[in-house]
Amino acid sequence: MEILSENRSHGGRQLVAKHASNATGTDMVFSIFLPPQAEMGPCPVLWYLSGLTCTHANVTEKGEYRQACARHGLIFVAPDTSPRGADVPDDPEGLWDFGQGAGFYVDASEPPWATHFRMRTYVAEELPDLVAAEFPADMSRQGITGHSMGGHGALTLALGLPGRFRSVSAFAPIAAPGQVPWGRKALGHYLGPESAAWRAHDAVALIEDGARVEELLVDVGEADPFIEKELRPELLEQSCLQAGIPLTLRRQPGYDHSYYFISTFMADHVAWHAERIGKG
Amino acid sequence: MEILSENRSHGGRQLVAKHASNATGTDMVFSIFLPPQAEMGPCPVLWYLSGLTCTHANVTEKGEYRQACARHGLIFVAPDTSPRGADVPDDPEGLWDFGQGAGFYVDASEPPWATHFRMRTYVAEELPDLVAAEFPADMSRQGITGHSMGGHGALTLALGLPGRFRSVSAFAPIAAPGQVPWGRKALGHYLGPESAAWRAHDAVALIEDGARVEELLVDVGEADPFIEKELRPELLEQSCLQAGIPLTLRRQPGYDHSYYFISTFMADHVAWHAERIGKG
Repeated sequence: MEILSENRSHGGRQLVAKHASNATGTDMVFSIFLPPQAEMGPCPVLWYLSGLTCTHANVTEKGEYRQACARHGLIFVAPDTSPRGADVPDDPEGLWDFGQGAGFYVDASEPPWATHFRMRTYVAEELPDLVAAEFPADMSRQGITGHSMGGHGALTLALGLPGRFRSVSAFAPIAAPGQVPWGRKALGHYLGPESAAWRAHDAVALIEDGARVEELLVDVGEADPFIEKELRPELLEQSCLQAGIPLTLRRQPGYDHSYYFISTFMADHVAWHAERIGKG
Repeated sequence: MEILSENRSHGGRQLVAKHASNATGTDMVFSIFLPPQAEMGPCPVLWYLSGLTCTHANVTEKGEYRQACARHGLIFVAPDTSPRGADVPDDPEGLWDFGQGAGFYVDASEPPWATHFRMRTYVAEELPDLVAAEFPADMSRQGITGHSMGGHGALTLALGLPGRFRSVSAFAPIAAPGQVPWGRKALGHYLGPESAAWRAHDAVALIEDGARVEELLVDVGEADPFIEKELRPELLEQSCLQAGIPLTLRRQPGYDHSYYFISTFMADHVAWHAERIGKG
């Protein structure tokens, strides 16, 4: 692991690091914020999975999470959203909603994607192992959140790995990728045309199939241009209601899909996770 | 004036706007945050002048000011740092410390700069007039701050325009541009080789020549790589001591020159200004 940059911020240390990933067969870059409390001993970890087109850098620069993480003593880890590089295949039409920057947190089974697009293994196994080995992280206290495609990632990882995460929340998640254009395109390419294979990577389908989390916090902007066609929070609401999962779904008037929305509610989410994974 | 973007954030409205500037003879872009209180009536205005290479966008994305401005009811305005465009001259050697992105908040007197580089008139007259005309701004309650070259701008505007600003602070300001490489290069090009002409645009020289402000708040990082050669906070400390200007100079251990530093102390500065320009 190579530290690419380190900056003091809000009393802690904001790092960006690079490492050679076995999962993706590429170099991968991630950011990690160590709060001041990490100087004294292991701290809980909040994972943040980013949305389409993003790298670690978007939330690191615009997410406004450091003040809250420093207050509550949480480590904040932001992985990249896909493998990258000249030998990594990309969207055939050059679009931004698939391929590099759009790994959808799955392990692809289909050529040519299966070689590098193994983001599920990367974020669920390889990167946690690296974080546990290299940083003062209390891996018995992990929470996960994310935005849009990363909200999908947070929900599906928490639903798919029972006991791993004590808390899960999301900003404007793609709640039912198997039912919307972004998701059907990506899952179709990565996992093949059989939609049965998609269900392990679709929060609404996972809940229908019996997966459970203790509770959920979700914020979505009412002025989000993707809410009706891609995000479908009402489908998550229905499945949580039927499954008896306590969902706090907040439809925020006037807010859109941008980091201006995310940063507004980030401190709320960090505090919510801290109540559930904080020390003690 | 054309609104380029508007996003709801922290309960208020983050706008980016463009207008044709008489001062610079170019289009100019700035950002303005209107806190929720601006829906009810005029709010005080905090100006933020940015540093070398920046546009309005750096602080708008990375500055972490909106939460504090929403809490205290302050409008936050971030101008660009220079005129820009194909017909605007730039650094002869293509360097980043002069020319486009480096207007130093002066009105150039020398060719070829004098045509467009009129940033003093722009930030001191034209843009305030526009803000007063277009937004619910209480221009009797203005404060000013800035970073690096913009810290220089904030200090020299406050010192040079007595009564205009009720409060002034700075992050890592270039305190004595007439005595340091960045400043000598820029002022030499814009104002000519006679250093007497520079004194009205040098905070330390202005104080030596009798200009006064009521008090100053300055943060600078002890790990700032520019502190010894370009920023010279000790010269500001000496001149304030001799002039009897109360200066709170905080040398922050471990912090550098980046927005990771600025964002850490932004809420402090906003609160400090709010105490002095807040309503009531």
